[in-house]
Amino acid sequence: MDPRLIPVKLPSSQYDICIHSAEGPSGHSLIQLGSQMRARGLSGKALVVSHPVIAKHFAAGLMQGLQTAGFTAQLCLLPAGERFKTPRSIAKIHDAALAFGLERSSTLIALGGGVIGDMAGFAAATWLRGIPFVQVPTSLLAMVDASIGGKTGVNHPKGKNLIGAFHQPRLVWIDPTVLKTLPGREFSSALAEVIKYGVIQAPDVFEFLEDRPKLSRYADFTPADLQHLLVRSAECKAWVVQQDEKEGGLRAILNYGHTLGHALESVTHYRRYLHGEAVAIGMVAAGEIAQRIGWWSVAEAERQRRLIEKAGLPSQWPTGIPWEAVLQAMQADKKVKQGRIRFILPHQIGQAELTDQVNLEQVRAAVEAITAA
Amino acid sequence: MDPRLIPVKLPSSQYDICIHSAEGPSGHSLIQLGSQMRARGLSGKALVVSHPVIAKHFAAGLMQGLQTAGFTAQLCLLPAGERFKTPRSIAKIHDAALAFGLERSSTLIALGGGVIGDMAGFAAATWLRGIPFVQVPTSLLAMVDASIGGKTGVNHPKGKNLIGAFHQPRLVWIDPTVLKTLPGREFSSALAEVIKYGVIQAPDVFEFLEDRPKLSRYADFTPADLQHLLVRSAECKAWVVQQDEKEGGLRAILNYGHTLGHALESVTHYRRYLHGEAVAIGMVAAGEIAQRIGWWSVAEAERQRRLIEKAGLPSQWPTGIPWEAVLQAMQADKKVKQGRIRFILPHQIGQAELTDQVNLEQVRAAVEAITAA
Ligand SMILES: NC(=O)c1ccc[n+]([C@@H]2O[C@H](COP(=O)([O-])OP(=O)(O)OC[C@H]3O[C@@H](n4cnc5c(N)ncnc54)[C@H](O)[C@@H]3O)[C@@H](O)[C@H]2O)c1
Ligand SMILES: NC(=O)c1ccc[n+]([C@@H]2O[C@H](COP(=O)([O-])OP(=O)(O)OC[C@H]3O[C@@H](n4cnc5c(N)ncnc54)[C@H](O)[C@@H]3O)[C@@H](O)[C@H]2O)c1
Ligand SMILES: [Zn+2]
Ligand SMILES: [Zn+2]
Repeated sequence: MDPRLIPVKLPSSQYDICIHSAEGPSGHSLIQLGSQMRARGLSGKALVVSHPVIAKHFAAGLMQGLQTAGFTAQLCLLPAGERFKTPRSIAKIHDAALAFGLERSSTLIALGGGVIGDMAGFAAATWLRGIPFVQVPTSLLAMVDASIGGKTGVNHPKGKNLIGAFHQPRLVWIDPTVLKTLPGREFSSALAEVIKYGVIQAPDVFEFLEDRPKLSRYADFTPADLQHLLVRSAECKAWVVQQDEKEGGLRAILNYGHTLGHALESVTHYRRYLHGEAVAIGMVAAGEIAQRIGWWSVAEAERQRRLIEKAGLPSQWPTGIPWEAVLQAMQADKKVKQGRIRFILPHQIGQAELTDQVNLEQVRAAVEAITAA
Repeated sequence: MDPRLIPVKLPSSQYDICIHSAEGPSGHSLIQLGSQMRARGLSGKALVVSHPVIAKHFAAGLMQGLQTAGFTAQLCLLPAGERFKTPRSIAKIHDAALAFGLERSSTLIALGGGVIGDMAGFAAATWLRGIPFVQVPTSLLAMVDASIGGKTGVNHPKGKNLIGAFHQPRLVWIDPTVLKTLPGREFSSALAEVIKYGVIQAPDVFEFLEDRPKLSRYADFTPADLQHLLVRSAECKAWVVQQDEKEGGLRAILNYGHTLGHALESVTHYRRYLHGEAVAIGMVAAGEIAQRIGWWSVAEAERQRRLIEKAGLPSQWPTGIPWEAVLQAMQADKKVKQGRIRFILPHQIGQAELTDQVNLEQVRAAVEAITAA
């Protein structure tokens, strides 16, 4: 398959998302990244931030390609997991940057899921007031969402993603074949964000997913189908980001399913659901609200629910969650103002809009309606 | 005296430097900042970062003005001094931001010298991926240099200003009368940067300083003279920053006197000289080099030396500093490449240029020539 380039044009910068499947014995295309970086004017030192599991699978080819292209490359490994997405880890990357002698013209490369991408991006944003940065997302979530848009950052002990900066990458390099080793639940969870693009802006993506015989695992997709999915997802996210780089307005539609999704993650202490699973339930709830206030047809809301289930995602609100806790979580999230709550709701598949015309009673009724019996 | 506005126009943003002397019994003009911020579209919460000594002198009026203008304001005090310019202090500001509930539309205000300004600016750059920021510089160095240009950041244990970001303020509010309480040596030290503007780009500033009967202390200036000095300094720095926001090229001329100045600060472990004092010696050395290679006249180099001394600044290289240590410091500073060294050198008062046509022997000879007997 031919590689695909998706250009991202922002007021502050311009770069490509390159989607390139492995061919030949190397098993992945990361060996070509070095020469692609050279072609984009990068050179000198490159510090690759990753974590041990990912590095074991993919670092060797990447490092070799960098060296062949004339880079002096070094690995900086951090422990995996959201709980290490902290200022402490940024300090570790900065220590490695200093020891390795990263200069203003050097490059930081993120090789990993969204956690590694967010951290390496923030470290790049804040080293010598900003150095070049390249994303090599290895999780489906990072490919379709986290690696695109320039949001970088870490968590504060009391809240997610509170500390961060906008810092656009010079290149996003996506090789779908690295998803082979991604745990199945992670794959399925990330499909929630793809379904989201379908509902808020891309009916073709929605129908494409409906038309697949199966879609909950990597192995359910042909290489061509997976590439198509990644290309369209990247285009969707890039389009929104191009309209609204710093999240002034339109970018808010990306929060479809996230108002209740975040609340559900929070009240279940980020343990019960992966992010995409909670978003899936949040989308079903938003669909229910949209349908009840007459914005959306019953038939399309039902199509959304079926697609979510087909992707192996949960579609029911869990039992035993006190409504007060959900309310509190939404309030902490600044989504509630004077009894009104801001929601992104669909009018039809492919079109959604921000509204504050929803009251809390309607939300509660919708949540009850989709709660497991 | 009428307040003076100096507009700064950058590709990414536009803001004013406002120079406004105290009038009336309040003793300073900071009480007006709140309404000026309102006039620029800011509102909501304002977190004022300062340190105890400064806050004792100036916070009350500032806070009162903020409240009168409808802001909810709170103070966040940090210990004073360069050694607290660390990621740890940024974490403290972020903790305060969280506890106070700073939102994306809230404002962080730096009330202090360059240390407070750099830290508060970096905290603002990295809270919620960047929130509005206002500079209220209280040291002469911060007024003429640090508060203008959008460089923010903190030190790494192994190097100054390695961690940081560009983040432009929404407003820089300068009240010259707050300098009354600034220690005399700090005042005099900052004059080195003003003399620097004179040599590299502003002959009128140089001559203005030459024409003052005395100039080493706050009390040596009339209010009108001090305002003129601050206006011209801000214009000089703003002009360079407008040509080159992210330090791609021209901005390097601001490093006049800093190549050897930094080295001298480093080999004396940042204890013997204030920054401006080391820069003063660095400018004398650069002048000596420029004169020896035929770029600059003996007479003008001599005028520079006399003005530096008149400002109460040192003009001789200290004895007993091993040349090897100086060399090493310049190398660590990335100023040396293959025996050649990058220098900003003057052609005439008001015009300087970057050159790598200086060799290390010439530097050494110049340093020896200006060393105290
Ligand atoms: N910056 C943004 O715009 C943005 C958008 C969405 C999410 N995020 C952030 O992204 C993070 C979530 O990203 P994520 O879901 O990728 O989490 P993650 O980075 O923790 O990765 C999930 C798990 O999959 C593993 N993994 C990743 N790729 C693999 C592969 N190819 N083979 C085997 N294992 C692999 C990781 O080691 C990890 O255990 C969150 O911190 C979230 O805040 C950021
Ligand atoms: N961002 C930039 O572009 C830039 C440019 C130059 C320097 N800097 C940074 O600025 C810092 C130096 O700034 P500085 O010289 O203002 O140091 P500083 O902030 O430490 O202030 C010097 C001393 O003066 C005191 N002080 C300040 N204002 C006072 C007042 N009105 N009355 C009484 N005491 C007062 C402070 O408490 C401190 O003890 C360094 O960290 C340097 O890296 C940044
Ligand atoms: Zn999401
Ligand atoms: Zn300086």
